[in-house]
Amino acid sequence: MEKEKIIIDCFGCDNPESVIKGVAKTIRNLPEIKLIAAGNRKTIEEILKDEEFDKSRLEILDAEEIITNDDSPVDAIMHKKNSSLVQSFLRLKNDGEVAAMVSAGSTGAVLAGSSVILGRCEGVDRPALSAFLPTDDGKEVCLVDCGANVDCRPEQLLQFSKYGADYMRCVHGIAAPRIGLLSVGTEDKKGNALGKATFKLLKDSDLNFKGNIEARTVLCGDVDVVVTDGFAGNVLLKTIEGTANSMIKKTLYLLKKHLPKEYDGSFIKSAFAELMQQVDFNSLGGGVILGVKKVIVKCHGSSNSDTIFNSVRQAVKMLEGGFNKTLK
Amino acid sequence: MEKEKIIIDCFGCDNPESVIKGVAKTIRNLPEIKLIAAGNRKTIEEILKDEEFDKSRLEILDAEEIITNDDSPVDAIMHKKNSSLVQSFLRLKNDGEVAAMVSAGSTGAVLAGSSVILGRCEGVDRPALSAFLPTDDGKEVCLVDCGANVDCRPEQLLQFSKYGADYMRCVHGIAAPRIGLLSVGTEDKKGNALGKATFKLLKDSDLNFKGNIEARTVLCGDVDVVVTDGFAGNVLLKTIEGTANSMIKKTLYLLKKHLPKEYDGSFIKSAFAELMQQVDFNSLGGGVILGVKKVIVKCHGSSNSDTIFNSVRQAVKMLEGGFNKTLK
Repeated sequence: MEKEKIIIDCFGCDNPESVIKGVAKTIRNLPEIKLIAAGNRKTIEEILKDEEFDKSRLEILDAEEIITNDDSPVDAIMHKKNSSLVQSFLRLKNDGEVAAMVSAGSTGAVLAGSSVILGRCEGVDRPALSAFLPTDDGKEVCLVDCGANVDCRPEQLLQFSKYGADYMRCVHGIAAPRIGLLSVGTEDKKGNALGKATFKLLKDSDLNFKGNIEARTVLCGDVDVVVTDGFAGNVLLKTIEGTANSMIKKTLYLLKKHLPKEYDGSFIKSAFAELMQQVDFNSLGGGVILGVKKVIVKCHGSSNSDTIFNSVRQAVKMLEGGFNKTLK
Repeated sequence: MEKEKIIIDCFGCDNPESVIKGVAKTIRNLPEIKLIAAGNRKTIEEILKDEEFDKSRLEILDAEEIITNDDSPVDAIMHKKNSSLVQSFLRLKNDGEVAAMVSAGSTGAVLAGSSVILGRCEGVDRPALSAFLPTDDGKEVCLVDCGANVDCRPEQLLQFSKYGADYMRCVHGIAAPRIGLLSVGTEDKKGNALGKATFKLLKDSDLNFKGNIEARTVLCGDVDVVVTDGFAGNVLLKTIEGTANSMIKKTLYLLKKHLPKEYDGSFIKSAFAELMQQVDFNSLGGGVILGVKKVIVKCHGSSNSDTIFNSVRQAVKMLEGGFNKTLK
């Protein structure tokens, strides 16, 4: 990591100020990191003027325009040439010293830019979006695809499985990552037409394929990679989020209701603060765009400075683990 | 409900004894109900011999065979003629006094029997399986299809929406149930090929269509019916179950960890007992097979006596609300 730089797209997200402060935080906390912050120079300088960090390790890439969630992703990538995102992609593509990008901007635009500007790895049909979920045994499971490709062919799901396995091998040092195919039952013959065809491909592949897995056991830690199409993967991901929120609300309400009057409830707050850390997307970093020529971490639109720090750390782990070599 | 009877398939589930005890419990708690318990007469009589209930309101339908989850559903329906499930279906089909059936047996076999023995409503292409989920505002949302049809056409999703609306109208008295189409975003154009085509059909229908809904807001109570194909619906349903279990485990562990030593933790148990009631499938009754000629409630394979009681009560509500008339 001595020479490699990581570029942060600072705009197009819900809280650019938090993202920009995250740049300073990351430099403070990762002693050797060199970052490039892309976006309006004046705004970035203004937000960073009171932050203490080693300014020699930051470069600002001036870019006036912003791609928003309301823009058509492909149009925006084609026409908003001076946006923080397009400028980030161009630099990532053309500068051999820049090894990775982190963005909290429009998912569609990040995916479009990955294909249109940066380019796919050889033999890759479509890039995929992965998410990393905390498992019950304190590890994480890679879910791919979680929304990039809502209609898929079996060959694509096979590719997604390979990307996911590469990630878990490089970042977590798992020699033969266990692959599970999301289905409606664990039996070999369960599944929709796509699943049944994919099952055969996975079984004939040299991947460590563990068969079908049901959605209810995704968080149990039985497999390292869960592969599915982007529609079902997105449903799974957002259901986890919605259910976790709903459970937290219900549980807090009932704990307060049953708490004896003479007890101080502050320990409940502490327990939930720790719970939030375990299940919070911000503390987990971001998803990764798989199948493209460099490392791209796409974090949540509502990312804060912690997310940026965690996402950069995740990109560093990928680079140190040799993930960029798997892209060749 | 004076003359109508409800038939309970007592076997093919995880705990037939609990189901059979649930028959007695239901008769004790619903003063006018008449039930038929299908299954091995000796076993049923043995289990019920110490139960107190009005025996004049129970008939036993003797059936030796059992259809299990390992049987091929269609084969089992065709060949296990003396199974509790097939006998239940034959009685339901042929006896005008029997208005509904409750089964905790193999979902595939219940679906197969619904089509093969009982028969679909006129114009219905495929029956669907619905589930009812507790929303944050204390009501419930109907999810259809949650696993019966893993590959669907848009016209089927339109039919499922109609079934779901009928149910919510009859059982909950909602005049114009709000329909949401499960998608990867709330914008009109979001979705896979199936979703985009279904969106148009729903928009042109006379249903109260509220557009696309994301999985994360399914439990918020913004719509009364969520429609999707059986693959995504099954993923959604099982993800809720898995995430709820995972959250309960994590939260309990952290509460115990943070609980001050001098505090008695029994109030946490009380809070979680109430939480479990709210999120437990057993207390909610069962799913409903929609699109077939009579009322069929399919409850969880691990159903206990409470589930049976709740499922019969659910069937009664459907009959009292005139749901069987919508089937004509």
